[in-house]
Amino acid sequence: MVTETEKQTLDAAPIRVITRGDVLRMAVLEARRNGKSIGLVPTMGALHEGHLSLVDASCRENDLTIVSIFVNPIQFNDAGDLERYPRNLDADLAALRSRNCNIVFTPSVEELYPPGHETYVEVGPTALPLEGEQRPGHFRGVATVVLKLFHLAPADRAYFGQKDYQQVLVIRCMVRDLNVPIEIRVCPTIRELDGLAMSSRNVHLDADEHQWALALAQSLELAAELVERGVRDKDTIIQRMRQHIHAAGRIDIDYIALVADETVTPVKKVDGPIMVLLAAHVGKTRLIDNRRIEW
Amino acid sequence: MVTETEKQTLDAAPIRVITRGDVLRMAVLEARRNGKSIGLVPTMGALHEGHLSLVDASCRENDLTIVSIFVNPIQFNDAGDLERYPRNLDADLAALRSRNCNIVFTPSVEELYPPGHETYVEVGPTALPLEGEQRPGHFRGVATVVLKLFHLAPADRAYFGQKDYQQVLVIRCMVRDLNVPIEIRVCPTIRELDGLAMSSRNVHLDADEHQWALALAQSLELAAELVERGVRDKDTIIQRMRQHIHAAGRIDIDYIALVADETVTPVKKVDGPIMVLLAAHVGKTRLIDNRRIEW
Repeated sequence: MVTETEKQTLDAAPIRVITRGDVLRMAVLEARRNGKSIGLVPTMGALHEGHLSLVDASCRENDLTIVSIFVNPIQFNDAGDLERYPRNLDADLAALRSRNCNIVFTPSVEELYPPGHETYVEVGPTALPLEGEQRPGHFRGVATVVLKLFHLAPADRAYFGQKDYQQVLVIRCMVRDLNVPIEIRVCPTIRELDGLAMSSRNVHLDADEHQWALALAQSLELAAELVERGVRDKDTIIQRMRQHIHAAGRIDIDYIALVADETVTPVKKVDGPIMVLLAAHVGKTRLIDNRRIEW
Repeated sequence: MVTETEKQTLDAAPIRVITRGDVLRMAVLEARRNGKSIGLVPTMGALHEGHLSLVDASCRENDLTIVSIFVNPIQFNDAGDLERYPRNLDADLAALRSRNCNIVFTPSVEELYPPGHETYVEVGPTALPLEGEQRPGHFRGVATVVLKLFHLAPADRAYFGQKDYQQVLVIRCMVRDLNVPIEIRVCPTIRELDGLAMSSRNVHLDADEHQWALALAQSLELAAELVERGVRDKDTIIQRMRQHIHAAGRIDIDYIALVADETVTPVKKVDGPIMVLLAAHVGKTRLIDNRRIEW
């Protein structure tokens, strides 16, 4: 027999939507004073199962979970990309209500960047190659907003997806270099059943493009198989990946890179654990994916 | 009648010297858990009465006061200046023992900047003119170390001297823009009996240079008098200040500037509260000073 009170709890986990930074901080500090551990999941909304796996991880490891939803303008180097970026707050809130998220932080751009804002996080060599080269200013924008969120929601742990491998490295660097008191937790990439890495941008793919895009994850599998079969040479691996991708459909590869694990340092030969990283345009949609290869 | 225990307390306030960031943070968090309010006074050591007035302010306003002593290499644009910068930890500790300082944080350079450090605070237009122009990279270095200290010693309030007017503006900007949860407290410039603004660098002045340097504070007084007497034009005020300084001795003026109060925006006419800012080399020693003029 479920009581009325219990039923309400089951029906709709009470989620608190906060738009102001000072209100968020007060709520987090009060929870901390009550001895609660805090998890923070920074997102740009348009939530998919990848994001929700981060929320689930935070709920498992913390007493209180905060999800921030903020399309951060300063991390977009392309105004068109910012404009096209999918936004669907109602669906996001519905998805979060189905999990155990406690607080959703949805600030306006003016709330986080009021007129006169002039201070940023200057990121270093980790942010230079790969995504940093393709998207100038991107990681500066990411690091700045993430640090702001860490201050507004002083959590014990913050959750990021492994799909954004270089982003994780940059944030770990920032946390170490600036002595930010937070633990960075990284969760595995979540994929569609067909292997496509989940991304908010996937909604932009038409049926053909979606089909072509499958070659990206497949090429990462191919790289793992090649290493398994004894291929060690970077150039050979990348060439075979490119062939596979180009055979699949109309895809513009931005880069394919083999780097030493936990770094952005290119390797010439596979002689230790590595990461294979790739970025490509499928139609107008830019996708990234990666795969760790144990050796 | 003073008991033995009380006597010990009177003789030597127990001061804890910490060199490791993680140990400092644990100590501060424990104090916070015990409900204590925390004050932080970031310094580069070579303490004088100006610094000690900040310590006194912190002790008045907080239950626990932390003084950091760290000659921050990344805020020096001139290697010679860094090398010459006065250091005297024993005298500093003795001075702090005579006040009610509880913790002294004296990290090594390697503790705050281990190999691989690559993340900095990027400061904006507030840091560009005046000291920023004369000392490229200075405020980036200041903001970076101050943010690190704010994370290592999460205090309620941090104390800075009004003598470093532009530094205070840059730090306030950073705190606002990055949502750093700390209150910035600014204390008045402390002067020698002869009017010279206290500075760790004053020890480098020989007797002649010290005498010449008095013209700096005098020229700020002169500016106030001129405004009092109805002079409003910036150029006239600066010209009179320059004449006074050059008449006094061998001084190279880096800049004299009239800016709107709480900004680095130059004013052409005095028609509101302003700050008069100056920097000059007296011999090899660079000094700064400033004065607020109400209007």
